[in-house]
Amino acid sequence: MDRDDPLAPFRDRFVLDADDGSETRRIYLDGNSLGRLPHATVERLRAVVEGEWGQGLVGSWNRWIDLAREGGDLLSTALLGGDAGEAALADSTTVNLYKALAAALEARPERRSIVTDVGNFPTDRYVVQGLAAARGLTIRWVPSDPSVDDVGAALDDDVAVVTLSHVAFTSGALIDMAAITEAAHHAGALTVWDLSHSVGVVPIALRSSCADLAVGCTYKYLNGGPGAPAFVYVRHEIQDDLRQPVWGWFGQRAQFEMAERYDPAPGIDRWLVGTPPVLSLVAAMEGIRVTADAGIDAVRAKSERLVALLERLTDEWLAPLGFEVRTPRDAAARGSHLALGHPEAWRLCRALIEHAGVVPDFRPPDVVRLGLAPLYTRYVDVWDAAVRLRLAAEGRLWEWVPPNRPRVT
Amino acid sequence: MDRDDPLAPFRDRFVLDADDGSETRRIYLDGNSLGRLPHATVERLRAVVEGEWGQGLVGSWNRWIDLAREGGDLLSTALLGGDAGEAALADSTTVNLYKALAAALEARPERRSIVTDVGNFPTDRYVVQGLAAARGLTIRWVPSDPSVDDVGAALDDDVAVVTLSHVAFTSGALIDMAAITEAAHHAGALTVWDLSHSVGVVPIALRSSCADLAVGCTYKYLNGGPGAPAFVYVRHEIQDDLRQPVWGWFGQRAQFEMAERYDPAPGIDRWLVGTPPVLSLVAAMEGIRVTADAGIDAVRAKSERLVALLERLTDEWLAPLGFEVRTPRDAAARGSHLALGHPEAWRLCRALIEHAGVVPDFRPPDVVRLGLAPLYTRYVDVWDAAVRLRLAAEGRLWEWVPPNRPRVT
Repeated sequence: MDRDDPLAPFRDRFVLDADDGSETRRIYLDGNSLGRLPHATVERLRAVVEGEWGQGLVGSWNRWIDLAREGGDLLSTALLGGDAGEAALADSTTVNLYKALAAALEARPERRSIVTDVGNFPTDRYVVQGLAAARGLTIRWVPSDPSVDDVGAALDDDVAVVTLSHVAFTSGALIDMAAITEAAHHAGALTVWDLSHSVGVVPIALRSSCADLAVGCTYKYLNGGPGAPAFVYVRHEIQDDLRQPVWGWFGQRAQFEMAERYDPAPGIDRWLVGTPPVLSLVAAMEGIRVTADAGIDAVRAKSERLVALLERLTDEWLAPLGFEVRTPRDAAARGSHLALGHPEAWRLCRALIEHAGVVPDFRPPDVVRLGLAPLYTRYVDVWDAAVRLRLAAEGRLWEWVPPNRPRVT
Repeated sequence: MDRDDPLAPFRDRFVLDADDGSETRRIYLDGNSLGRLPHATVERLRAVVEGEWGQGLVGSWNRWIDLAREGGDLLSTALLGGDAGEAALADSTTVNLYKALAAALEARPERRSIVTDVGNFPTDRYVVQGLAAARGLTIRWVPSDPSVDDVGAALDDDVAVVTLSHVAFTSGALIDMAAITEAAHHAGALTVWDLSHSVGVVPIALRSSCADLAVGCTYKYLNGGPGAPAFVYVRHEIQDDLRQPVWGWFGQRAQFEMAERYDPAPGIDRWLVGTPPVLSLVAAMEGIRVTADAGIDAVRAKSERLVALLERLTDEWLAPLGFEVRTPRDAAARGSHLALGHPEAWRLCRALIEHAGVVPDFRPPDVVRLGLAPLYTRYVDVWDAAVRLRLAAEGRLWEWVPPNRPRVT
């Protein structure tokens, strides 16, 4: 499978583990928490730090001032199914979610309810709770990994906005953006999507789904680096009708004229707020570029095969040892990670990290989450990880560990 | 003066212009827009990018998770006149200002007015306008560079919060934080200070002034790099009474337990929101460290001497050529830049940048702003810049330009 993998060369675009002379390198299955470092990012950061900042000084703002939009355009057109001018890189996912939800609520002032799901990522739930508390709104909770019917049952003319994650961070379920958006629109509500666990690994069709707003991070499958700036998407048709609440100079029309009164810039620019963290922004840009180069369809094709392989090995080797697949079985209904329930999940994760050169992610209370980032994960990695997880569950991990074992941190 | 300068060795801690074989190097007088790059930052970023991200991967979050607080503690104790646990690095100055003002307004719900000054930095004015528009509040505008009496005249029991910049970005005026805070408190209002143009160059006494909240950037005199994360300060006594509006997982008590409901962390942590941009955060930290090492009193002493020298040369050489000092004459009532009014300010700034190896900052409509960052600006730089500005104003700049002139960008 690796020999026939058209994306195999992309592995060389990432910094892999330092060669410590051991027979193996760590198998990193947590790229959906923090993606790997692209070589291009190392080079670009050096040029930006030492050249643009160190030598160019304040004059380099001529280059930096457009980064948020350039990154947004590339992201939107290559990976979000949007147009140029519909997305920008800015702030954190949480701050963008706050801006998006507040703007949507302001656009539906007579409506007093927000729909979200109980399994949504914590920061998403907290932002909703904060806005609801401040404005006396009602939160209508729908089940985790909601179906169209789940959401439909919560909709009526009191709902201002529906906010959901496209791929659930726990189960990996991929929900039906187009159908849910249609249902929301039918009820007169706006939609705000969190794409953090789908962007860069699942083809996203924001425009053709008529999705209204979306946010997401760039440090998972997009490999933008720790805490790299997030993105915000607003579809063209509603850009001029919405106003986000944090009025700042980067969202001002003709910013450097420094006019007396705030006058929001046209288009996506009004979603910018303060001075962006340029070093992290540059890293986000480089990460996005690598995935855009690979092409999202090729990435998705490999992702589906990687997940299917892990699913098959789980069924054959791990299910008899007490593992339970908690991710949808339908390949079209999941993202790029597999959640395996096991009563000893915590202990098994520690064993893999400390003794087997495999980095999974533990999700309380009992899930081993295995993220398969297609740009640098090989099929053999999936095989080897499954072998080692089996040995760990059997208490036979010592059989695997090579004498000259890799140093794992 | 340079020979006797105790801070002279600090110049070597910064990356200076590449030596291009010319007789001179650029004189950078815009460190109050973007500070220079410390050598330590180059090294630290390399270690963080290639080591902590590239090799350590997600496990490095064990190191990164405390950066926001560590940076805040160093900043607070060394430079803000605050305690440990009173400040954190987070978001942009604008987002922090929004959070601070919204929290202050929530703490005084029966009061319907905000006091700020007409000359405040644009983003500060816009944030105030946005909050006032959303909540139907009144903005009471006081004059630029307000005195205690100016602010006092605007105060009554309808004012929830007074928000001002400590040092004005145009005139450089340093206003009386302690007296204005006292007046605000006497009227029952809270204070939110923007320290962007004073932090790292003026000793700040937040605690002894009883200042309530403060924000500021780290990319000017703190040399934290373009768009480096800002800071937010909240004095201990009111930390548990205030609640900022953007509820995110980094502000959650026991963040990784991912509880169902938002429960704000105690202390300054509740002011954190989303995942911070680690690369930019690391750069901010290094910049803060350099200034902390120098000591704020030594920095202030040199700053006063640099500004006084420029003032004297302006009076002797430039006043006869139509320059007017727009910065307070009292050394105790100004920060570290001098604003020189001149009808041809724009043309003179361009001439200095393009032909004289000097980088000033133009401020519309007619101000040449000369920022004197004490850690890397020499007295001879002030002298040379004044010589060249005089030549430019006399139309004799060609007399200065050396045959092998530096390449300026």
